[in-house]
Amino acid sequence: MDNPINIAVDAMGGENSPAKVIKGIEIHSSKSKNIFYNIFGDKNTIEPIIKKTKVSNEIYKIIHTNNFIEDTDSPLSAAKKGKDTSMWLSIESLKNLKSDAIVSAGNTGALFVIAKLNLKMIEKIDKPALSALWPNKNGMNIVLDLGANIECNEKNLVDFSLMGSALHKSLFENEIPKVALLNIGSEELKGNNVIKNTYQILSDKTNSLFEFKGYIEGNHIMDGDVNVIVTDGFTGNIALKTAEGTATFITSELKQALNSSFIGKLSSLLNIRNLKKFKNKLDPRLYNGAILLGLDKPVIKSHGSTDEVGFANSLKVCEKIIKSKLIDKIKKNIN
Amino acid sequence: MDNPINIAVDAMGGENSPAKVIKGIEIHSSKSKNIFYNIFGDKNTIEPIIKKTKVSNEIYKIIHTNNFIEDTDSPLSAAKKGKDTSMWLSIESLKNLKSDAIVSAGNTGALFVIAKLNLKMIEKIDKPALSALWPNKNGMNIVLDLGANIECNEKNLVDFSLMGSALHKSLFENEIPKVALLNIGSEELKGNNVIKNTYQILSDKTNSLFEFKGYIEGNHIMDGDVNVIVTDGFTGNIALKTAEGTATFITSELKQALNSSFIGKLSSLLNIRNLKKFKNKLDPRLYNGAILLGLDKPVIKSHGSTDEVGFANSLKVCEKIIKSKLIDKIKKNIN
Repeated sequence: MDNPINIAVDAMGGENSPAKVIKGIEIHSSKSKNIFYNIFGDKNTIEPIIKKTKVSNEIYKIIHTNNFIEDTDSPLSAAKKGKDTSMWLSIESLKNLKSDAIVSAGNTGALFVIAKLNLKMIEKIDKPALSALWPNKNGMNIVLDLGANIECNEKNLVDFSLMGSALHKSLFENEIPKVALLNIGSEELKGNNVIKNTYQILSDKTNSLFEFKGYIEGNHIMDGDVNVIVTDGFTGNIALKTAEGTATFITSELKQALNSSFIGKLSSLLNIRNLKKFKNKLDPRLYNGAILLGLDKPVIKSHGSTDEVGFANSLKVCEKIIKSKLIDKIKKNIN
Repeated sequence: MDNPINIAVDAMGGENSPAKVIKGIEIHSSKSKNIFYNIFGDKNTIEPIIKKTKVSNEIYKIIHTNNFIEDTDSPLSAAKKGKDTSMWLSIESLKNLKSDAIVSAGNTGALFVIAKLNLKMIEKIDKPALSALWPNKNGMNIVLDLGANIECNEKNLVDFSLMGSALHKSLFENEIPKVALLNIGSEELKGNNVIKNTYQILSDKTNSLFEFKGYIEGNHIMDGDVNVIVTDGFTGNIALKTAEGTATFITSELKQALNSSFIGKLSSLLNIRNLKKFKNKLDPRLYNGAILLGLDKPVIKSHGSTDEVGFANSLKVCEKIIKSKLIDKIKKNIN
């Protein structure tokens, strides 16, 4: 391969790993060219699986280790497990320039800590932010921070605006990033001082990367008028998880309603094509892949409970981020 | 009537008022006994509407005023409009002991400020909290604070736990209030100091009103394992509105999916009874009525955009709160 993109894959974290990871690689590699996968984990488990797939042995290498971080490990106990865990080794391959990005479906807290121990921050950025895709009426939002920092100051939120916009541009190159600050509505009560000051800074700032659209309330996140939503990690995490919980609640109530009688079942069957379209649009696997922004290498977290399709999508996110030179884009715009 | 319950009704705020307010009174009064409505607003508009309803003129009085607070008024401009607005007069009737509770579908910020100017706080409570009903798998949550206070200390959150539990007990007398603190998940990052300290205080506290169940994440709010969710007003407002936005997004996507083909339309028709059941369970009118807790009189805010059915439900909330002696329950448990 000519200068392939090298993706470090931690094969051992999350539900049904490494099987779903390997099958995710099969799906991704069938659609993408010039990618090389550095797969970190237990060779004895991985090899028999990957040999049953159509993945050519010219596009991957298995780097064996027996030491894995469990989903139940605390970040501290994970770091103590040492430098030969599959997660540590895969992150280290970024540091050693053997890989261009890393993806893991493992322990989020551990991934953060080990990434921060091994990788440098982008110059002038104080805090990393966890960002993810969130569907809206017209496409996809980037929302950040989703839990890396409980408290943020004005500088952090301005940095998040830049990093989130650069990420949006990398994933959806034809769209203009439109940034909004997540806030509450009532005039009198509007926001704390950090949010108000950030509003002022972003209003005064001229930049070629994004348009600043002011405040947004929780009920308008999915309207599609903006596409980069900035907030502190506490609020962002609560918002994301509340949206997830609401979606689960509604779809399970809907399922119950549709299946609660014979006629209901019958008409559900008739309707199955339309419901599938609905389900596809809301399929969380479509926007699987949270990105830890602020480090000088791309670190991607796949949802632990996703399947091979979801994992393949997080590999796609890796690929887009590298091809679009996300990190360079951030460096050029930061100040 | 023998010692009727007196409800002060601000007839002039919100969409389609006073028509929906009067029709709401008609619905409520057809199902409840021994209620007297003190209706504040423009007699010339209200009288022709109420005379067309079945509401007996023995169960209401119209207190006329021409001065109304608009939904677009800031709390300050609302307060400046003076003491003869329908909102001010209806709150004043609590102070004068002419009414036992007040409900308004008008301007939320104005209602807060005018209520705080006219009514006393319950002794030992520092901050009022806005609370509302939020459906879960087994019934209803009370969630507070939803926006009255951006920042809260430990004492406030402990007070909210007590007030929210007393409210849940008032509305659902057969259930035991189970309190949880809204927090984020990752071990390492878990919560700020205020939340951690509140957790400790609530764990150590013995009380006969509620069980303390620890932390809850956003995705579990609707699981039904707890029923009183406590948080600061900033986080609570973001969570509530994000849930609203998610529900709107999903139902509108669903509608589109069901109507996008002939066969879809046909099977939707077949399925209409089941979908109605689903819709009914999620009908926001069912849990209309936010309650400002902490003042020594009950102040109920109906959603501005609700209709007569929703307004009738907020009158039902008033009635339950008064009958169950909510304020006494809070006073007895506070310390």
